[in-house]
Amino acid sequence: MRVMGVDPGLTRCGLGAVEGRPGAPLTLVSAGVVRTGADEELGARLVGIEAGIDKWLDDVRPDAVAVERVFSQHNVRTVMGTAQAAGIAVLCAARRGLPVALHTPSEVKAAITGSGTADKKQIGAMVTRLLRLAEMPRPADAADALALAICHVWRGGAQHRLAAALAKATKKGPGS
Amino acid sequence: MRVMGVDPGLTRCGLGAVEGRPGAPLTLVSAGVVRTGADEELGARLVGIEAGIDKWLDDVRPDAVAVERVFSQHNVRTVMGTAQAAGIAVLCAARRGLPVALHTPSEVKAAITGSGTADKKQIGAMVTRLLRLAEMPRPADAADALALAICHVWRGGAQHRLAAALAKATKKGPGS
Repeated sequence: MRVMGVDPGLTRCGLGAVEGRPGAPLTLVSAGVVRTGADEELGARLVGIEAGIDKWLDDVRPDAVAVERVFSQHNVRTVMGTAQAAGIAVLCAARRGLPVALHTPSEVKAAITGSGTADKKQIGAMVTRLLRLAEMPRPADAADALALAICHVWRGGAQHRLAAALAKATKKGPGS
Repeated sequence: MRVMGVDPGLTRCGLGAVEGRPGAPLTLVSAGVVRTGADEELGARLVGIEAGIDKWLDDVRPDAVAVERVFSQHNVRTVMGTAQAAGIAVLCAARRGLPVALHTPSEVKAAITGSGTADKKQIGAMVTRLLRLAEMPRPADAADALALAICHVWRGGAQHRLAAALAKATKKGPGS
C-alpha cells in the first residue's frame, strides 16, 4: 500500500509518500514541500499548490492520500490558508478517485510516538527510525507529511482488514 | 463589467452574476446555488463545487470574481468547509487568469445597505431593488452572492478609476 501524506500550508505544503503494510517495515518513496510566496496573491498560491500536488500524484501514484485535519481553534492567523491548502489536496485526490483520509495531529502523534502530545522533534526522530533513514527529513513539514502517511498505513490497514472481514461475512450471509 | 459573486458553502454555495458600472443601473445576469449532500464525502463535495463553479464560469464568462472572505471567529462548526469552498472558487477563477477579490460580509453589507450590520432580509431587499427584480432572489445564498457581485462592481469601479488615474499620472511623470 502506497500512501501520500499532505501537511497542508500555503507557504510550505509538506508532501511525503511511503510504502508498507501494518506489521512490516516501511519504505520511503519521496519527501518534499511545495512552496508559494507570501507576497503572491491567494489565487496564484492556490494554483501553485494544485500544480505541485498534481505533479506529485502523477509521479508517486499513491493508493490513498492522507491529509491533516485542520481545526479552527489554533493558529487563527493562518488557519484559513491552511484549510484551503488542505481542501485543494482533498480535491486533487478525489478528482482521481483516490480514497482520502483526514487524520488529526494528535492521531498522527499517537500513532507514530505513542503520545498524542509529542513534539515536532520526537515526530521527526520516529519518522527517521521507522523509515530507516540516515538523517531526519527536512524541512519539518516533509517529516510531518511522512508521519501522516505512516499513520494512515497503520490505521488504514486496520480499517481495510475490518472492511475485508465485513465483506467476507456479508458474502456468507443468508442474503446471498 | 460583468462580475460573478460567490457566497461559499459546502451544502449551498451561492452564485450570482451582475453586469454594470458605478453610477449606472445594474443588470442581473444569473443567480443560483451549487448544492452538495451533507452525507457525501468531503472529496466528492469539493469536486461537485469545483464542477459547479467551472460550469458557471463557462456560461457567465465574468470579467472578475468576488468571493466572501471567511473568518475563523464565527460558525466554528462549518467554517472549515466554508473556507475550503471559498478556496476552490478562488482556485477556479485564478486558473482562468480572472482577477479575484475577497470582500468581508460587513464590507458587502455597508456597500449595499449603508450599514455594516444589516440583516439578510435587508440585503435581499436591496439586491431586489438595485437589480429591479419582481421578487427577492431565492435561496438567500444566491441573493448574498449577488450582493457580493454588486459590492465588487462599485468598489472595483473605484479601484479601477484609481489605477487608471495612477497609470495616467505615471505616464506623464518625469521618468518616461
